[in-house]
Amino acid sequence: MSRKIRAAVVGYGNIGRYVMEALQAAPDFDVAGIVRRDASNVPAELEVYEVAPHVSHLKAVDVAILCVPTRKVEVYAKECLELGIHTVDGFDIHGQIVPLRASLDQAAKRCGAVSILSAGWDPGSDSVIRALFEAMAPRGITYTNFGPGMSMGHTVAVKAIEGVKEALSVTLPTGAGLHRRMVYVELCEGHDFEAVAQAIKSDTYFVNDDTRVFQVEDVETLKDMGHGVRLERKGSSGVTSNQLFTFDMRINNPALTAQVMVAAARATRKQQPGAYTMIEVPVVDLLPGEKEVWIKKLV
Amino acid sequence: MSRKIRAAVVGYGNIGRYVMEALQAAPDFDVAGIVRRDASNVPAELEVYEVAPHVSHLKAVDVAILCVPTRKVEVYAKECLELGIHTVDGFDIHGQIVPLRASLDQAAKRCGAVSILSAGWDPGSDSVIRALFEAMAPRGITYTNFGPGMSMGHTVAVKAIEGVKEALSVTLPTGAGLHRRMVYVELCEGHDFEAVAQAIKSDTYFVNDDTRVFQVEDVETLKDMGHGVRLERKGSSGVTSNQLFTFDMRINNPALTAQVMVAAARATRKQQPGAYTMIEVPVVDLLPGEKEVWIKKLV
Repeated sequence: MSRKIRAAVVGYGNIGRYVMEALQAAPDFDVAGIVRRDASNVPAELEVYEVAPHVSHLKAVDVAILCVPTRKVEVYAKECLELGIHTVDGFDIHGQIVPLRASLDQAAKRCGAVSILSAGWDPGSDSVIRALFEAMAPRGITYTNFGPGMSMGHTVAVKAIEGVKEALSVTLPTGAGLHRRMVYVELCEGHDFEAVAQAIKSDTYFVNDDTRVFQVEDVETLKDMGHGVRLERKGSSGVTSNQLFTFDMRINNPALTAQVMVAAARATRKQQPGAYTMIEVPVVDLLPGEKEVWIKKLV
Repeated sequence: MSRKIRAAVVGYGNIGRYVMEALQAAPDFDVAGIVRRDASNVPAELEVYEVAPHVSHLKAVDVAILCVPTRKVEVYAKECLELGIHTVDGFDIHGQIVPLRASLDQAAKRCGAVSILSAGWDPGSDSVIRALFEAMAPRGITYTNFGPGMSMGHTVAVKAIEGVKEALSVTLPTGAGLHRRMVYVELCEGHDFEAVAQAIKSDTYFVNDDTRVFQVEDVETLKDMGHGVRLERKGSSGVTSNQLFTFDMRINNPALTAQVMVAAARATRKQQPGAYTMIEVPVVDLLPGEKEVWIKKLV
């Protein structure tokens, strides 16, 4: 077996913690270290690892797994690529993936490194399935139905509204790619529920969806990390219609995101320099060990 | 747009007919011709095409889509590769894919061509999903449940048994990757049903499965081309258990096989010389046109 892949975990929030677990469970990775702004803040479970304020302080890093807010991905990725370190991120603003890829592709090629972007579950593994469905039935419609599960982006948007003390936004699928937003809020003292509810419904995150707002005593007791998706396509293969495809998953959200990022980190070592989305990476490259073993087992 | 891909259809049986339809429906293919042993046998729908007894008689073929019996794939593929023509096949004997790949890889590399093998739905697109599931939850079990649908291989096995005039073997999933075989037979005059049923149940194709045999007047009225599969995986991402994944499809069997073969034919032009299974090919390469358009639409 070839030597292990040395991965740095950049950012140690929710996703970073799950990435550490996935790296520890993987047969082919060593943790090169964790990058935290405040490197003196070392929780007990990280005591056996290098913790540094910058990836350049860590030794012999092959790949950096960027567990940072999506808007900071580009800056962090380029810093790593300049050092010749491969990168993986979970960039999740669908409309901005093409320009980010172009930008990272240039940096990666200049530095002889590989960047795999948007390597979570959507964008990420869902994208692979959508592309496969498209190839299997080129004419038709694919619906992506999310949930039920907590939406991080929508929850943050609610928390930013005046009068909201704590919030939780749950996404429920109502079919054909449409969603209902169930919003649970704790109010700040002296604020009117109806006014807050109206402000939420008028927010750009919610204005196009069926949004229901509920006042609760304690948002914390409602939270869980479960999420799901149902991808559906009905289409034609050649001229034969009514080909029906469904992909359904029920998952712990950050655990799957982290696992896909770790799999993508493995795949960085098998691509030519440049930036790639998940649909551009052969799926076998996501798996450890010898290709022939997987071909025998899975094909 | 770049020039169209010139595809030859080798073999014009059930799959070959559906491949023709898929090629005609595709925006980026031209039919270079059809190869039939008896090239004078030209059905009406092929009159506008070249029909030849050998692929070498056709002009400027980029890729040959081999719609031939699985045991003849290797010979036909090598003939094409020697001519510098890429190949796609639907080789479906799971246990023999690794050696076939090794053999075709050598031929393909020597001739500077590309061969994508076992490019149907199982092996094929199902393999891609099994590999993706494995990457998403590295510990766990995947069950492949086939049907309900007609099994070609099992039907042929029944027809070979003495006393059987016509037959149909339907595969029904009974869960956890196990299957029941429902076998419908027309008997030849003077044969005993119980003896025939016993012979079927003792056949290597059936001996390990729950097999039920029924005598019918007319097998033909029971046939349809519908088939299905349900892939299920329950596993762990990192150390987080109970990650649940399901892929389900209900399809016209030869139409999907043909469509996947045509998509793979497209992908041959984007790989380095050599032989590949579907899990080694980036899914975006299965799609026509510009990569960036698909990234924008699907990722």
